[in-house]
This record gives sequence, C-alpha cells and structure tokens, in this order.
Amino acid sequence: MLSRNEFKYIQSLFDKKNRQEEGLFIAEGPKLIEELLKSNYTIKKIYATNNWVVDNPDYKYNLTIVNEAELSRMTSLQNANKVLAIVHQRENVFPTLDNYFSIVLDGIQDPGNFGTIIRIADWYGIKNILCSEDCVELYNPKVIQSTMGSFVRVHCWYGAIANVLNESSMPIYGALLDGKNVQLQNKVKEGFLVIGNEGKGISKEILPYINHAITIPRIGGAESLNAAVATGIILSHII
Amino acid sequence: MLSRNEFKYIQSLFDKKNRQEEGLFIAEGPKLIEELLKSNYTIKKIYATNNWVVDNPDYKYNLTIVNEAELSRMTSLQNANKVLAIVHQRENVFPTLDNYFSIVLDGIQDPGNFGTIIRIADWYGIKNILCSEDCVELYNPKVIQSTMGSFVRVHCWYGAIANVLNESSMPIYGALLDGKNVQLQNKVKEGFLVIGNEGKGISKEILPYINHAITIPRIGGAESLNAAVATGIILSHII
Repeated sequence: MLSRNEFKYIQSLFDKKNRQEEGLFIAEGPKLIEELLKSNYTIKKIYATNNWVVDNPDYKYNLTIVNEAELSRMTSLQNANKVLAIVHQRENVFPTLDNYFSIVLDGIQDPGNFGTIIRIADWYGIKNILCSEDCVELYNPKVIQSTMGSFVRVHCWYGAIANVLNESSMPIYGALLDGKNVQLQNKVKEGFLVIGNEGKGISKEILPYINHAITIPRIGGAESLNAAVATGIILSHII
Repeated sequence: MLSRNEFKYIQSLFDKKNRQEEGLFIAEGPKLIEELLKSNYTIKKIYATNNWVVDNPDYKYNLTIVNEAELSRMTSLQNANKVLAIVHQRENVFPTLDNYFSIVLDGIQDPGNFGTIIRIADWYGIKNILCSEDCVELYNPKVIQSTMGSFVRVHCWYGAIANVLNESSMPIYGALLDGKNVQLQNKVKEGFLVIGNEGKGISKEILPYINHAITIPRIGGAESLNAAVATGIILSHII
C-alpha cells in the first residue's frame, strides 16, 4: 500500500522544476526498466505489480509492490505498464567528440521528436548528442518513453553548441534547402549532423558553422519532413 | 458568440463514432485550413478569430467569428491556433495503383506515426496509402494535425490489403530482419512498401506477399526504429 506522501512525491517528479531540484526522473514499463538495470544509471526506487516481480525475481532492492489501481494512479502513460522507476539523473558531462560522429540539436522542442532521435542515434551507433540550452529536457517523461530505452546508451549534453562547433575542425553537416543531394553523399566517420528546430530550422547563430549542406530531394507537395524522419534519412546515407 | 449546442456539436466530433455517423472531421490551424481551401475537400464550417479573418479576407462562406477564449475551449491542440474547421470526410474510393508506387500500412496504431507517414508519402510524391482495417482512423484529429496538411494530397483507402497484394504483379517491399541492405537497393517506379504494426511488425497474413525484403543495417543497440522513420529511410533509397 502506497502512502499519500509517496504518491504525491512521485507525481511531483512529472514536473520539470521538481525533477531538476531532486536530480531524479521517472521511467516506466518493463522494456525501459530492463535497459536501466543493465546500464550505469542508478535506480532509486521501483514500484511494480506482482506481474513484473514474477518476471524479475532477482530484483529486490528498493522495491515496492503496488496493485494495478495504484500503478494506474501513478502513471503518465495512457495505460500503466507493470512497473515505474524513480531514477537518478546523470551529470551533464562534456563528451569526447574527436573521431566520432555526433548529432547536434539546435532548439528541438517536441519530446516525441527528441526521444525518436535518441532511438535513431542508438540504431546508428552514435554515442553523443549535443543539445542547445533551449532544447526540450532529456528527462521529460515523454522523451524518456519515446526513446524505447535507447537513452541509456546515448549521452546527451546540454550547453553552448556554437562554441563546440566553432572549436572543431571536423565536418559539420546540416539539412538545408540548397545543399548537396543526400543520395550522393559519401560515408563519414567523424563530424556533426545539426538538426534544427521543428518550425524554424537551424538558427542564425548556428548556420555559419554548417560546411556540408545536405538536401533531401522532394518530389511531392509536403513543405518539410518531420525532424526525426529527416535525421533518420540523412544518417542512413552518411553512416 | 457560440451557442452551447454548437460548442457541444464540435466537441462531439472529437469522438470517432460521431465523426463516422456525421461523415465529418475537424482540422485546426492556418496551415491546415489553407491546404484544405486549395483542395477538393468540402468545408462545412469555419470558426476563426479576427486574427485569421484579417489574413483571409476572401473567405466568407459559413464563417463564424469567435474570440480566443471560445477557440481555446473548442480546440484539441495544446494551444488553440486561430482557426478550426469542420470538414466533410471523403468516400473510401479504391485508387488506381498500376504504374504507381504505394504505401501499405498493416496495423499502424499510433496517430502521430500515421500522420507522419502521410507527410513522408506527400514529400516523395506518393499518391496512395492502403490501410488495413485495424489501422488508426485517418480522421482522428491527431492524425490530421500531424500530417501538417499533407492529407489533402495523399489518398488513404481502408480495406482488405491482403486481397490487393494477392492480385498485384508489382514488386512488394517490406522491412524484415533478413532482407537486402536498403543502401544497395535500386530505384523503383511501381510497387508497394508494406509497413507493419509498431510493436508486432508485418502480420502473418501479409508476410507471404513480401517478395522484396529490405533491411536497414543496424550499428548500435536500439532494437528497432520508429515506423515512420523506417518508412522515410526506405523511401529515401528506393524512390
């Protein structure tokens, strides 16, 4: 049985301010918890139904068994999914970029897009995503859930992306209207792919750093592609 | 000023059963309404703020001017966006497929994925999407909004997709684990790309019809790609 205070505390972590103050976030469902248990993230607490406990007999640390009704009251999902964990946030460590290919997000706002981009990065073996300060928060529950667990393998750093690009001598790719056809690109081993904001594209501040402009040729009438779809298409040609 | 009954009627159209009974759907925001006005969809009614009316002085037919508060009460969006229209659904007409490349959706459930796939189809000049009966409804407001207006140019038909594939002699592509590398595919002019359900993939019923299995090579740790992202990647190599 869950105390009222415990329930309130969990709910408070669906709010960004509280997440940041506590240095915690929430992940839900067996797939994400499985990925977290294999990762170097530290789990503070797990709330699970008997269903999940039966499938995970080895996990006994900081576990509270709840019933379906309790989990349904806690969840941010449309349907509660067996287990919810409170997890410690990682520190915002600046990663090693040399000799690697990284994604740079310039003002990505939609949690689903960000989560999907993390999943794509993980698919293509990309270790690091650099995010401008105005990007949506990594620990937003919608971001975490839409990564399908890939956030444990992709490190996201927030900071002054212009400075990073300015100091690098590696190629910097960006999707622009007048770039080279993506289908004619050669494979690359190191560098950056900049993905701009969903509505405004790449910002004026970042635009001068793009030295490899790429275009996804359009045949029909759509004005643009979804940011995550464009990321997937470009990576599928250059990685 | 909006009557209570009119407000209730609009709200009722956010429900699938009522949409189907009335043969209507709702679209919101200047971009979608602009696309609808250029299309052969028939608009039944527009509710707009003065802001929108000033930008669209020529539109006077079946127009009700509402204030921001009224629009905010009506909208299904997080923030109301100047205009909401009630639009007549199109009939479920079976399209001409010969000599064209079409997308086949086999149990796509997520409205955002479906809308994004329609937008991708529009980008690549694909005219028709064939949907299995268990796909999410085209006129779901989340589908319509996430197409960014592309639904006016892409015809979606619902029906027995197995029969269609069975009767066609055109190539049928599908993303499978043991297929040919997507990066080594030749361009195609006609045929089908089958996209399976988000969790379960292509169904057992449809699997035997796939005669061109494609694989998107994986380098990292993600188990799968988002259905819309996979659609974009495959089309970017074969169209």
